Amino acid sequence: MTVLTLLTDFGTRDGYVGSMKGVILGISPKVMVLDIAHDLPQGDIETGAWVLSQYWDLYPAGTVHVAVIDPGVGSGRRAIALEAEGRFVVAPDNGLITRVLARSATGSIVEIREPAYQHSKVSPTFHGRDVFAPAGAHLAAGVALSELGPAVRDPELLDLEEPERETATVRGRIVHVDRFGNLISDIPASWIGEGWRFTVEGVDVGPIRATYSAVEPKGLVVVEGSLGTIEVAVRDGSAADRLKLERGARLVGKEGPAD
Amino acid sequence: MTVLTLLTDFGTRDGYVGSMKGVILGISPKVMVLDIAHDLPQGDIETGAWVLSQYWDLYPAGTVHVAVIDPGVGSGRRAIALEAEGRFVVAPDNGLITRVLARSATGSIVEIREPAYQHSKVSPTFHGRDVFAPAGAHLAAGVALSELGPAVRDPELLDLEEPERETATVRGRIVHVDRFGNLISDIPASWIGEGWRFTVEGVDVGPIRATYSAVEPKGLVVVEGSLGTIEVAVRDGSAADRLKLERGARLVGKEGPAD
Amino acid sequence: MTVLTLLTDFGTRDGYVGSMKGVILGISPKVMVLDIAHDLPQGDIETGAWVLSQYWDLYPAGTVHVAVIDPGVGSGRRAIALEAEGRFVVAPDNGLITRVLARSATGSIVEIREPAYQHSKVSPTFHGRDVFAPAGAHLAAGVALSELGPAVRDPELLDLEEPERETATVRGRIVHVDRFGNLISDIPASWIGEGWRFTVEGVDVGPIRATYSAVEPKGLVVVEGSLGTIEVAVRDGSAADRLKLERGARLVGKEGPAD
Repeated sequence: MTVLTLLTDFGTRDGYVGSMKGVILGISPKVMVLDIAHDLPQGDIETGAWVLSQYWDLYPAGTVHVAVIDPGVGSGRRAIALEAEGRFVVAPDNGLITRVLARSATGSIVEIREPAYQHSKVSPTFHGRDVFAPAGAHLAAGVALSELGPAVRDPELLDLEEPERETATVRGRIVHVDRFGNLISDIPASWIGEGWRFTVEGVDVGPIRATYSAVEPKGLVVVEGSLGTIEVAVRDGSAADRLKLERGARLVGKEGPAD
Repeated sequence: MTVLTLLTDFGTRDGYVGSMKGVILGISPKVMVLDIAHDLPQGDIETGAWVLSQYWDLYPAGTVHVAVIDPGVGSGRRAIALEAEGRFVVAPDNGLITRVLARSATGSIVEIREPAYQHSKVSPTFHGRDVFAPAGAHLAAGVALSELGPAVRDPELLDLEEPERETATVRGRIVHVDRFGNLISDIPASWIGEGWRFTVEGVDVGPIRATYSAVEPKGLVVVEGSLGTIEVAVRDGSAADRLKLERGARLVGKEGPAD
Repeated sequence: MTVLTLLTDFGTRDGYVGSMKGVILGISPKVMVLDIAHDLPQGDIETGAWVLSQYWDLYPAGTVHVAVIDPGVGSGRRAIALEAEGRFVVAPDNGLITRVLARSATGSIVEIREPAYQHSKVSPTFHGRDVFAPAGAHLAAGVALSELGPAVRDPELLDLEEPERETATVRGRIVHVDRFGNLISDIPASWIGEGWRFTVEGVDVGPIRATYSAVEPKGLVVVEGSLGTIEVAVRDGSAADRLKLERGARLVGKEGPAD
């Protein structure tokens, strides 16, 4: 069975996701449909792009990831489908695929244009059901990417600032705040050695540690997070609440004691 | 694999839905169980009926939809199963199936009575697990509807007021407020021509537009919603918050400029 | 298809659960992955243990239940896998399996140690993805429990106080408060006869009834709950809100009128 995953900001309580699943199974009854999340912040493309980058390449080759954070639904924005590293992503062309592309060696993108792979009447307000779900289901059923429409060479991309690395100093940003209040940065842990210390927006958060439990409960701790980047946390607590920080906060690491 | 969907107001965090899934797979291991939603407002049969109407007929023939919004559990209310347009719905007899019946050309209903298709000891507080899940699983496994119990000719129905249509005027109601704060009405968009304008509870919300992006961000907009009815929205915002309106609000459309 | 269920306190919106599902399907593409819940209170092992006990033995033999409430991730706590009554549970060794063991006639436990059944590089912060998901997927694919690591004879257990039974008096505790505000106790309903009355933290909550609807809407009611224990509820309301009580509150039942 081919796997098809769903990521949206639709919530579940209105049945919108339920109708997407129905459309998918109506087209391709042998697909295994899995939920990633439906409670993303509404219209938050940056968060969607980050979350998608967590999981897309862990799934078996052939998996189709449908991701719909789509504040521009009904406007001129394109609907696209991407093939990268053997997986597919179906999404609006609004930057949602930015981090997938950043982590792919290969990749080709098409615009979803072919009417045969969309609903016969496309609602101007619900492309999740009428465009993205059908396109995903057809890809899962074996339709070739190129059948969906013409190649796209200029996808919309988020303007990701890259972390910087100098001798004995690294600079990056908090790119995601998770449900636990962990502040996840874009600084690769591989850039850091033992004894490095960090400040976030000027506040000393201490040296890098091996794990949360290296500090007392409720203590601030800097660790390598689950995607291999530096993360600022509070053990059994929320660093975001403690430090009153959000996505975009600046993280600086220095070799040796912080000044 | 037969598909079985679940719609409840149980939430997930107590394991109640988890136990329903276990019962279903214990009876019918080859069923594909899919979540629609579990976060419906508690005991809100009107919302349940509306949500169910979103998705039930999009699924392949043979699909079983189990829907449990059941404030009357343990009272005398009947448990029923419905076959309509080749799909099944299993639910308490409290009006939840009203909108499914309203959209079905065909349909037969039975009361779930046969003990062989229920748990051997039915808890008075959890028919989701002991009545509805087993009945759904047995239907998914191929048991005929008529095996579950006797025919029901007088199902409980919600008292849905119908929208009205006169020359150059239509009148209807907001029947659902979704997570985005969109006000979804029961007025078919097919009744409306270009240039019609709308008021909701007397407040002018402007003419019908092709899509959300026809207005500026944060602007009020009237569009054809995803089920083909008139919807009042705020672009990138919440019409329910802006207008302080709820389900039941009256929507009036007139040909030509609003007066 | 083998069923694998997931219970976590991760939420869904960060993609952590999505990445666990990807790892599982990457290892064992024929597993059917089902969500139990991801919104458990953070780090609340007692709730996790109670919820797990709701559903684990309702699933078909061979089912793998992965449960990750893991405040001690990265500390020395062991990762374990359990086989009981033909089902498997994969969890941190922090008491989460306490109520499963309490309800199992048989059971064997191993520590997850064998590197072949974990991710090649285990993140110190995300054993859900790197330890528990792979172990669960390998069990679902048919790997024997004993292959995962050495036997564990001293699993961490929660200190559950047992309800007490005297002539004409029973004493127990509220062990869970559910989403509806129902106060669920550990007193078996089979201990109680007709006419018994209950007090919770000294407040009279009346006699045992057959079902919620035996009282008026908004009335307090004592019933046999869905797991066969005594439950205090408010019909169409919340007993937890009404009585301002939490887990741990003491429930006393007496034969005959309350004094």
